[in-house]
Amino acid sequence: MSLLLAMTGWHVEDWRARFQALLPEMPIVVPGEPFDRRAVHYVASWKHPAGSLTGLPNLAAIFSLGAGVDFLFADDKLPEVPIARVVDPDLTTRMSEYVVLHCLMYLRQQHRYMRQQQAKLWEDDRNQPAARSVRVGIMGLGELGLDAVAKLKVIGFDVAGWSRSPKSVEGLQTFSGEDGMKDFLARTDILVSLVPLTPETRGILNAGLFAGLAQDGRLGGPFLINPGRGGLQVADDIIAALDAGTLKGATLDVFETEPLPVESPLWSHPGVTVTPHNAAMSEPEAIATLVAAQIRRLEAGEPLLHAVDPARGY
Amino acid sequence: MSLLLAMTGWHVEDWRARFQALLPEMPIVVPGEPFDRRAVHYVASWKHPAGSLTGLPNLAAIFSLGAGVDFLFADDKLPEVPIARVVDPDLTTRMSEYVVLHCLMYLRQQHRYMRQQQAKLWEDDRNQPAARSVRVGIMGLGELGLDAVAKLKVIGFDVAGWSRSPKSVEGLQTFSGEDGMKDFLARTDILVSLVPLTPETRGILNAGLFAGLAQDGRLGGPFLINPGRGGLQVADDIIAALDAGTLKGATLDVFETEPLPVESPLWSHPGVTVTPHNAAMSEPEAIATLVAAQIRRLEAGEPLLHAVDPARGY
Repeated sequence: MSLLLAMTGWHVEDWRARFQALLPEMPIVVPGEPFDRRAVHYVASWKHPAGSLTGLPNLAAIFSLGAGVDFLFADDKLPEVPIARVVDPDLTTRMSEYVVLHCLMYLRQQHRYMRQQQAKLWEDDRNQPAARSVRVGIMGLGELGLDAVAKLKVIGFDVAGWSRSPKSVEGLQTFSGEDGMKDFLARTDILVSLVPLTPETRGILNAGLFAGLAQDGRLGGPFLINPGRGGLQVADDIIAALDAGTLKGATLDVFETEPLPVESPLWSHPGVTVTPHNAAMSEPEAIATLVAAQIRRLEAGEPLLHAVDPARGY
Repeated sequence: MSLLLAMTGWHVEDWRARFQALLPEMPIVVPGEPFDRRAVHYVASWKHPAGSLTGLPNLAAIFSLGAGVDFLFADDKLPEVPIARVVDPDLTTRMSEYVVLHCLMYLRQQHRYMRQQQAKLWEDDRNQPAARSVRVGIMGLGELGLDAVAKLKVIGFDVAGWSRSPKSVEGLQTFSGEDGMKDFLARTDILVSLVPLTPETRGILNAGLFAGLAQDGRLGGPFLINPGRGGLQVADDIIAALDAGTLKGATLDVFETEPLPVESPLWSHPGVTVTPHNAAMSEPEAIATLVAAQIRRLEAGEPLLHAVDPARGY
């Protein structure tokens, strides 16, 4: 039996070397070279070309090499086998670094103070609110959302969370479903989007949602932080909301097209902070180690961890 | 008995109104109007003119209206009565917001990504270290230092602390005194200065100290964050160290002269982040409430809280 590596935009030979070191007894095959399709029991994929995983009669499992699996469900010829995603504690920690950093930049008006420095202007805001007066709303209460919640609470923010289905989290005000969304948004000064990209969440960060955010908060208007998936946001609506004042700022790590094209108005809009999809990067060694451990579990007859639900899409 | 308010740069009538509301039975007097100097039992001061607190024969205590008391000890005619400083939990929280924000900006290379955005450049660092690979050193383990330590550890940083006299803090590597300074600096990638300003600490952030910081860290050079007191730092040495590469960046909230003069090269140095002495601002109401509570303690015969030691200067 063998492991097929299928990826776009990554160096497949680097990944082959990593996996071979971890699974020395297993043949590792890659597209573009001849291999026995019947021998392929496992696929590790990052954005494989849609349709390229057909004709693998003995396939037992597909592993996403990242936290996201939306690219798998976008392949309508994906074999019907169990799918697992990577849950990397290190990736979770990095995502929370990013979320806490950008919440604090908005809380402490760091964008303003950097502009003031360029103008050599010494002026501070005597009404600077403390973290407890600023309401952060975490949309998505999976591994990433819950870790961000815990850390933002330690810093002192007033945090609440929203999830698709009801969740009870000790010490956290939670909202759920379509019914809970309105109240969740109405108490949110900084919205952090950590929901998976599914057909239901595509374009969820749009004009209607922004209009529902708190307009009366201590920071003088709501902010959006999206370190999740570019498909969640409607870029034109973000710019329109910033121009209309419905949003006061937006920090975006992800985009529909990446790299973000130089023509995009997001690059130069004064209300937008762009980072190059690096909010939470796993180290390749950590990912390969986690996937190799999953393969060894299956070989030993143990159940798959972090399996995704095709019906929910995450 | 009365309370004398003595301050420079603040609106004394605003403070009189605050204290009068909290201590309705007590006369509140201010310089520049006639008052009975023998009736003054308490002074609340923020940078009173040196020598102006003499001739108060029944003075029982002096309250600093801030966390710092260096301006009191700079007055060589200061009456020899107990002195207390403000310990405001809210101020501590705000200082930690600032420290965590600026440590994360250096960890996540946010200064670089903001420059890249201006150039519409999409490029990320595949070797981005995680917080656990970056060593923060907190100089000063008082209320402020210990709170920052706890929060930086939750974010994931590798934190150690230094204090003048030995301190044992659970789960924290600590160093102390002159003997411990060298080893402390040698393992520090981001130095955060939260020591009080005393004759011993004046100018402590100088060329010699910078040369002792870790030059082999994952961030490619050491960083300085000084939200403490301007007198701790030698501005010329900071610029020289940045130019020489001994420091990779410096975030300064405090300066020898404030507001920072427009002629200062700190404003426009690419390695310097300037904020207008607002790292930790207490709300005036909170300060007045804490000082009024201290006065009521003394009136009730209870001991003073947060008394400072004139021999140590803090």
